[in-house]
Amino acid sequence: MSFTTGLSLKFSIFGSSHGGGIGGSLDGFPAGFRLDEDRMKMWAQRRKPGSSIYTSQRKEDDTIRIISGFTGGYTDGSPITLVIENNDSISKHYDYLKDNPRPGHGDITLFYKYGKYRNYKGGGFLSGRMTAPIVAAGSLALDLLKEKFGIEIISWIDNMGGSYFGDAIPGDPEDPYRFETRCGDPESDRLSKDLLKEVISRGDSVGAGIRTVARNVPEGLGEPFFDSVESSLSKILFSIPGLKGVEFGSGFSFQQMRGSTANDTFYVDGGRIKTRTNHNGGILGGISNGMPLDFRVVMKPTSSIHMEQKTVNIEKMEESTLMVTGRHDPCIAIRAVPVVQCSTAIALLDLMIQSQKIDRVLKN
Amino acid sequence: MSFTTGLSLKFSIFGSSHGGGIGGSLDGFPAGFRLDEDRMKMWAQRRKPGSSIYTSQRKEDDTIRIISGFTGGYTDGSPITLVIENNDSISKHYDYLKDNPRPGHGDITLFYKYGKYRNYKGGGFLSGRMTAPIVAAGSLALDLLKEKFGIEIISWIDNMGGSYFGDAIPGDPEDPYRFETRCGDPESDRLSKDLLKEVISRGDSVGAGIRTVARNVPEGLGEPFFDSVESSLSKILFSIPGLKGVEFGSGFSFQQMRGSTANDTFYVDGGRIKTRTNHNGGILGGISNGMPLDFRVVMKPTSSIHMEQKTVNIEKMEESTLMVTGRHDPCIAIRAVPVVQCSTAIALLDLMIQSQKIDRVLKN
Amino acid sequence: MSFTTGLSLKFSIFGSSHGGGIGGSLDGFPAGFRLDEDRMKMWAQRRKPGSSIYTSQRKEDDTIRIISGFTGGYTDGSPITLVIENNDSISKHYDYLKDNPRPGHGDITLFYKYGKYRNYKGGGFLSGRMTAPIVAAGSLALDLLKEKFGIEIISWIDNMGGSYFGDAIPGDPEDPYRFETRCGDPESDRLSKDLLKEVISRGDSVGAGIRTVARNVPEGLGEPFFDSVESSLSKILFSIPGLKGVEFGSGFSFQQMRGSTANDTFYVDGGRIKTRTNHNGGILGGISNGMPLDFRVVMKPTSSIHMEQKTVNIEKMEESTLMVTGRHDPCIAIRAVPVVQCSTAIALLDLMIQSQKIDRVLKN
Amino acid sequence: MSFTTGLSLKFSIFGSSHGGGIGGSLDGFPAGFRLDEDRMKMWAQRRKPGSSIYTSQRKEDDTIRIISGFTGGYTDGSPITLVIENNDSISKHYDYLKDNPRPGHGDITLFYKYGKYRNYKGGGFLSGRMTAPIVAAGSLALDLLKEKFGIEIISWIDNMGGSYFGDAIPGDPEDPYRFETRCGDPESDRLSKDLLKEVISRGDSVGAGIRTVARNVPEGLGEPFFDSVESSLSKILFSIPGLKGVEFGSGFSFQQMRGSTANDTFYVDGGRIKTRTNHNGGILGGISNGMPLDFRVVMKPTSSIHMEQKTVNIEKMEESTLMVTGRHDPCIAIRAVPVVQCSTAIALLDLMIQSQKIDRVLKN
Repeated sequence: MSFTTGLSLKFSIFGSSHGGGIGGSLDGFPAGFRLDEDRMKMWAQRRKPGSSIYTSQRKEDDTIRIISGFTGGYTDGSPITLVIENNDSISKHYDYLKDNPRPGHGDITLFYKYGKYRNYKGGGFLSGRMTAPIVAAGSLALDLLKEKFGIEIISWIDNMGGSYFGDAIPGDPEDPYRFETRCGDPESDRLSKDLLKEVISRGDSVGAGIRTVARNVPEGLGEPFFDSVESSLSKILFSIPGLKGVEFGSGFSFQQMRGSTANDTFYVDGGRIKTRTNHNGGILGGISNGMPLDFRVVMKPTSSIHMEQKTVNIEKMEESTLMVTGRHDPCIAIRAVPVVQCSTAIALLDLMIQSQKIDRVLKN
Repeated sequence: MSFTTGLSLKFSIFGSSHGGGIGGSLDGFPAGFRLDEDRMKMWAQRRKPGSSIYTSQRKEDDTIRIISGFTGGYTDGSPITLVIENNDSISKHYDYLKDNPRPGHGDITLFYKYGKYRNYKGGGFLSGRMTAPIVAAGSLALDLLKEKFGIEIISWIDNMGGSYFGDAIPGDPEDPYRFETRCGDPESDRLSKDLLKEVISRGDSVGAGIRTVARNVPEGLGEPFFDSVESSLSKILFSIPGLKGVEFGSGFSFQQMRGSTANDTFYVDGGRIKTRTNHNGGILGGISNGMPLDFRVVMKPTSSIHMEQKTVNIEKMEESTLMVTGRHDPCIAIRAVPVVQCSTAIALLDLMIQSQKIDRVLKN
Repeated sequence: MSFTTGLSLKFSIFGSSHGGGIGGSLDGFPAGFRLDEDRMKMWAQRRKPGSSIYTSQRKEDDTIRIISGFTGGYTDGSPITLVIENNDSISKHYDYLKDNPRPGHGDITLFYKYGKYRNYKGGGFLSGRMTAPIVAAGSLALDLLKEKFGIEIISWIDNMGGSYFGDAIPGDPEDPYRFETRCGDPESDRLSKDLLKEVISRGDSVGAGIRTVARNVPEGLGEPFFDSVESSLSKILFSIPGLKGVEFGSGFSFQQMRGSTANDTFYVDGGRIKTRTNHNGGILGGISNGMPLDFRVVMKPTSSIHMEQKTVNIEKMEESTLMVTGRHDPCIAIRAVPVVQCSTAIALLDLMIQSQKIDRVLKN
Repeated sequence: MSFTTGLSLKFSIFGSSHGGGIGGSLDGFPAGFRLDEDRMKMWAQRRKPGSSIYTSQRKEDDTIRIISGFTGGYTDGSPITLVIENNDSISKHYDYLKDNPRPGHGDITLFYKYGKYRNYKGGGFLSGRMTAPIVAAGSLALDLLKEKFGIEIISWIDNMGGSYFGDAIPGDPEDPYRFETRCGDPESDRLSKDLLKEVISRGDSVGAGIRTVARNVPEGLGEPFFDSVESSLSKILFSIPGLKGVEFGSGFSFQQMRGSTANDTFYVDGGRIKTRTNHNGGILGGISNGMPLDFRVVMKPTSSIHMEQKTVNIEKMEESTLMVTGRHDPCIAIRAVPVVQCSTAIALLDLMIQSQKIDRVLKN
């Protein structure tokens, strides 16, 4: 019923792509964590359009203004609220979209839900731009998990447009950001670029999959029911616009597996219990088991494409056509990579606080 | 942090497979809905083991005792609480399992989380038996949605062990219950039975996928962020033991699609706006669009198999072997079908109440 | 919207005074606390009617059945659910009450809210009997706080019917239970008994005030806004039927005070900061300050009295009269004492868990 | 655990009196309500210091910047977020306060809770300035309730420093704002001013009581337990800094009453059931009964006084003295009047939405 998620760490977003600005609030973040505005900016940059020819060339000015949550450069236990201002380009184009909803986009459901009061400009609060505060706030969670617990979260595109790039996990969370396509290695990056060039030339878009692995996640996170690791992660992940599926470990491949293969057998390694395989993606019975957390999500092709599409004029209730002009992302999955990564960090930090694995006031 | 899910309709479960009983509470259910204990029993029956050779032959006595929530045979607006008693078979087998966790099972994470205080008998509160109250309570939601709104939810197995049974949607929610395998048609049922016989003969288990379609879902359910239809459904679905993935509409197939195909184009039909395809599974921007809700989940193979497996003795911290005796399900997906269906009903009814599509006191 | 309170420790109640039973569930209680059924029974006994001539002579059989939450005699981290069965006396009297609501009672608001579907027998789920699960479950919180943290919560009647019995705080939480009137000393008990005899002889009832002091509450509990100690306590306290006011520390006496007197000045005592007075009742800025938590509540006179009263026949919409027969409490405050005390324990334990002052798995 | 309250209408605050600003977010407000910035400003003005000699002469610039929630001048269903910027006066005085906490103030509990990371300047996020967003956002709820439902909420000071000004309820919600002391009539205003002049001359402060009456509240709001009208209101009210008690209807006067007097007898008036008295303040069994909602709160004397007080230097752990300079409120209750009124509006609107008495999208 609300624009808020999380239990012990609550995250909420507000605003829309056109208007006073967009922002977010992270409530329950431990006190005593140093603010590094440069890192936050760097993360925002990773999500921003216009960083390569493989993303939308739209110009967004993502200057983050931190309203609250810090005292003397450290988090002070109160909500961290940040606002990113919009530099509104007045677009006549949106007038047409108001009456002629884009296929595959939430234009029409905003109309269903809020009628004439809907926020329709540029997708209103269903714009992908709403993920900017997720990245800004989530990067703090990402850094905290890394710095205090050595938890590394890495997200990358492991397949695009039907090509699967293999099972290898990049060694470093920074690796995917060395490639404009957010793939995990040079070869996949090259293949993706070829595909994207062709997609761009047609004015079309393409879907892709993002895999995320988190190392050094402590055992015992999550609750058996409803607040399981899977439930907690999927609740925030499914709020990323365009994300239509989440699978943990072997996920949908379990459909063709036998128990004798799927069961991850235990062994002892250096005084700790590990599993030889990790088909369960680090989660058993909803609770983390100390193995790497491993899951995949699918991002559908960008709904805004530079091709003529059939739609309906909702005022006249008659069929019409639509040609979205302007610059769109050929593959929104690319810019979704840091969003998935930062969403994961927010959910994991919440689970850490719930499970009392982290103090509410850090010892520095 | 709790065994509760839902916002305006809260559902919680308690108990474990061994001990005083298991139960659930459904808080916020509209007043004025007639109790039909026979239907509730029928639904409980559909989840129970022992109903065919293709499920576990374990004997469970699922007599449902309704503690509260009804006055004069109608819901009275207070929490509907029900308890299902256990008829405990004292099992020495569980003593071995206590120290030697089953691979692929939550035995080990219960140990991590609760240590020596864990509820370990028969999987404790990670037992599949915990889904019995989901079905008992959820069947009320299912019936209410059907009776008052014509919303039909149908769930069935559409693939098993690598065989995909096609895209056809059964015409009637009762259809899958005509087949012991909960498939959608006689041919799929036959194929599944052949596969299951072979799996049973080896003492192994097999994974499968369950598809769910809900017809007549009103437009405008769900919120743009965090309480979206996808988020709300996945939160409860991922609490079903053994469920490892959820995809909406075309789901992971979006990975190989282009926007020009994936976008569901609009047209007008009888004064209503519909889409020619339903790749988005009835949800755009997190909000229902009036097309059938359509999603799939994957159930991993039962972790308890009748084969020797490698594990670790957690007291001695040394490797050991384990042979689970007793009767297990060759494919838990079969008994999970009504659980998925009833979980969907609970989540949908919550969304209906949140969106004020249903009155808290029914007009009869 | 629900019958649940609490954040990290969730407490819910269900059932009604007539029907299958009443019960409660305490979800989030730390694992590893030993069950002492005799103590739980003793606490239930303290709330039960019929324990003296100064309470209702109604016979209730409060046998507590624990459904879940314990393994091997210790809490196991899962919800503690308990059910108390009703031994329904069929009462024709309730038929009259159905149409002629008792003045001062929730009969009429149940009618407003749920119409013909309301649970009307014996006050339905607005019966004082609903507090039985609060005491049963809350006594566990009370014992845990005492045993692990030395936190002592003491509640007693400090005034009745206009007579104020003074500021002295009983030395021991058991003291008030030495008196049938739950006063703090023999003299107050004697005065109250004289008053109650007179009240009983008239068939009337009388109001009273209950004071609660909790010693050894750690500093730092509660949040600055909305989840403050005051907010958390008052949320659960105001659910006790008949409770109409809550004041912390000097409470409404602050109205006539000056800041120079009201401010509790600090001093150092044994390496700890204390205040010379405790006008703020142990809470500053919503957060506990290490001084005793100190608050008072008011319980209105029992609404059911043995005197003819004017009411309205809600079917005929005409004025009528009502004479409540049967046995009622001359002063519900007496039986509310353990309810206030146990509610306080539930709220405080929740604040302890939220503030991470207590481990979710106890070290024994 | 968070800076958020409310269920279907969530309200959160952020920021502090010194730093980037303070703000609030109101999530779940119905779509379709027209923004009237002038009215919002007028309300902000009523809470601001410096409006008369009877309040602090501190200069605060409460320019409200609306970030989100409006489209085309109407609420659009998304969170209404507003930010009020601080114009920080660098104050050396706060350096002394950092180590020497003010008696009666939350300075010390912030230290206990957040240690060296606390936000200490000007009370940090325990400053009374945190109530500015409550008034700004709450005024929208106030106006909506009035405009669409005729619900009028009126708050005024009915006693100060020991003088009680009588039971009369002002006829108009605007009345108290005709008096600098927020009393309900000229005579009480005059008496209060005399008292305040004396208090100011001593550098002291004084406590007072605020009564609130809401007319035309529909019947059936609130839930029997935990989300009762009393629980919902008290949860938000107890977050107002300095508020130490809440009583409904006759409140603590019930202590000396008999049931025969306290019970509000029913009668029929114009086809509706009313009560001849309203000792229960419009609430029975936690649910509104259609009579005016009536409650009182107590505001303690401002803790910051212009007199030397004993405190403790928390760094040296030795006793010290403190003389708060600068301008303080002689009676914070005066500026708390609109805060209580607007908090009531937020809580009532939430109860209206929960009870489905108001549509999420308004029909205009």
